[in-house]
Amino acid sequence: MKATVIYGAGDVRVEIVPDPKLHEPTDAVVRVLRSCICGSDLWPYGGKPAQDHGDRIGHEFLGVVEDVGADVTGLRAGDLVVAPFVWADNTCDFCTEGLQTSCRHGGLWGRDGIDGGQGEAVRVPQAQGTLVKLPVGEDSTLLPSLLTLSDVFPTGHHCATTAGVTPRTTVTVIGDGAVGLSAVLAAKRLGAERIILMGRHTDRTDLGRDFGATDVVAERGDEGVERVRELTGGDGTHVVLECVGLRPAIETAFAVVRDGGTISRVGAPQYPDVPADFGVFFRNITLTGGVAPARAYIEELLPDILEGVVEPGRVFDQTVSLTDVPAGYRAMADRQSLKVLIRP
Amino acid sequence: MKATVIYGAGDVRVEIVPDPKLHEPTDAVVRVLRSCICGSDLWPYGGKPAQDHGDRIGHEFLGVVEDVGADVTGLRAGDLVVAPFVWADNTCDFCTEGLQTSCRHGGLWGRDGIDGGQGEAVRVPQAQGTLVKLPVGEDSTLLPSLLTLSDVFPTGHHCATTAGVTPRTTVTVIGDGAVGLSAVLAAKRLGAERIILMGRHTDRTDLGRDFGATDVVAERGDEGVERVRELTGGDGTHVVLECVGLRPAIETAFAVVRDGGTISRVGAPQYPDVPADFGVFFRNITLTGGVAPARAYIEELLPDILEGVVEPGRVFDQTVSLTDVPAGYRAMADRQSLKVLIRP
Repeated sequence: MKATVIYGAGDVRVEIVPDPKLHEPTDAVVRVLRSCICGSDLWPYGGKPAQDHGDRIGHEFLGVVEDVGADVTGLRAGDLVVAPFVWADNTCDFCTEGLQTSCRHGGLWGRDGIDGGQGEAVRVPQAQGTLVKLPVGEDSTLLPSLLTLSDVFPTGHHCATTAGVTPRTTVTVIGDGAVGLSAVLAAKRLGAERIILMGRHTDRTDLGRDFGATDVVAERGDEGVERVRELTGGDGTHVVLECVGLRPAIETAFAVVRDGGTISRVGAPQYPDVPADFGVFFRNITLTGGVAPARAYIEELLPDILEGVVEPGRVFDQTVSLTDVPAGYRAMADRQSLKVLIRP
Repeated sequence: MKATVIYGAGDVRVEIVPDPKLHEPTDAVVRVLRSCICGSDLWPYGGKPAQDHGDRIGHEFLGVVEDVGADVTGLRAGDLVVAPFVWADNTCDFCTEGLQTSCRHGGLWGRDGIDGGQGEAVRVPQAQGTLVKLPVGEDSTLLPSLLTLSDVFPTGHHCATTAGVTPRTTVTVIGDGAVGLSAVLAAKRLGAERIILMGRHTDRTDLGRDFGATDVVAERGDEGVERVRELTGGDGTHVVLECVGLRPAIETAFAVVRDGGTISRVGAPQYPDVPADFGVFFRNITLTGGVAPARAYIEELLPDILEGVVEPGRVFDQTVSLTDVPAGYRAMADRQSLKVLIRP
């Protein structure tokens, strides 16, 4: 079959790889109907050292079950399923607590011999715990929104949930990428009435307004901080959702959070530490968030997608075939595309 | 009157200062019955640059109201009251949310012309919001425990509360000072069944066991981390209460917290930042805590002291007169005393 591999920065290729087969009785094989490119795929695309072999890449997909191992119950060939971006048994103590990203028997796509999601098919370990059945057909117009259950929508939701967003909390979202916009949608869904979106790409912040942002701050750095403070009587917001992962973004988060407030971060951090001095301490700032256990949230978020209450798939603004995935990476890296959908 | 002043590191004196008088109609004057020395007083005692004038010091006291301003209702001369370690109006939005340390009209004892607590009397700004009446007499044996409502017991409670301690959370407390022991007591009071106390002074950890610690780890650094991990099946604890404020303590906190867990810190940080790299991110570690809004907790904690359910005053192991306060500082700095009570 064909699958996407990465050889280094700027060097993504689509190659022929071995067809996936069941290895373990807990495996399934899924034919991919839709996959996509994640903002976090752009980190290796931007900086991975060149190597002489390609590594599998991609961690978001939905598709049709083709085969299941002997120990897999509740799933059978023909089921349409979505996979969260970390596979997990969904039965260990961490999973039971809703932290499937720390599953005792789980792992990452595209590592240690596991397929990546940007291919024609995937061997799914711990299939029974990992995959969630979707009650739609292969031709459903909901597939893009359902695909966001793999990562980007639950990631926005994780950000908002761990931050404790309620109707009473004011919210700043930092970043107008697909995760930032998903965080806006998630905060709105949780009832937030005041959502300030910090971003400077008008097409993206316009979608952010559709998703629920009440204010947009295009300024960055000190000027952006000043603007958020102006909008909040000088205080900042109860909650800050940091959806970028770069040092200036997390610094802005500390500058626009209200005393006693919470910063949640879901942008994979490209910085080693955060301020924690006496000023932060005296202001009682909480820092939370982390990699989203998407699996924990799928059942909760699914009905709103099926009923059309939310349409997170609007973050996809370009669709490519598997052959054109390298062009999709270029488009996202050049910011010509917000998020690229792949139809293998 | 006499009051304690600090001229620099190691130089604490008791001097004659002006008698406190009402300045504002919201003031009260309180004659101090009991005060004490805080671990945080040891930071300036350890490192304050020498100066030619003394600064007032001390922020924990209880006493008897002597006079109240025209705008103060609910308090009158003769009332026995306790003051939290930050004064506050208790009516602004931050106070209403339980964050009196960020009160819009509050401040710190011993700063900007406000008296310190280690003296014979104190002018109390925002008296109606700051002071809490205590239903005991001047000769009550509960005075030491009631005095802990100023700071150390609510600080331990703030640590445990912001960390989300419940009967289902395992807890590590880092530090066997008065705050650490108070955090043990607070965690126990909130129902924690497993409390690992990291400390190496046997007399202190023995009191920690009395307060509810189920395990004591005397080792420090990597060895201490290893020991806590051994005690928890390799995972660490759901909650870590960091009650020291030094870099090694917060680093230990990150090393012994379980994936998905929470570190709460109430030790005034003597470090500028904390680790926040991809490893911390992937483990979904939350960092919370900060300076404790003691005022927010006094009504909740008071009944258990009055009923003898808890006896937080056991952290006092030495009592001095006001004249002997300098010796009290030395005893605490030399670790000959856990916490020093002052009877002016």
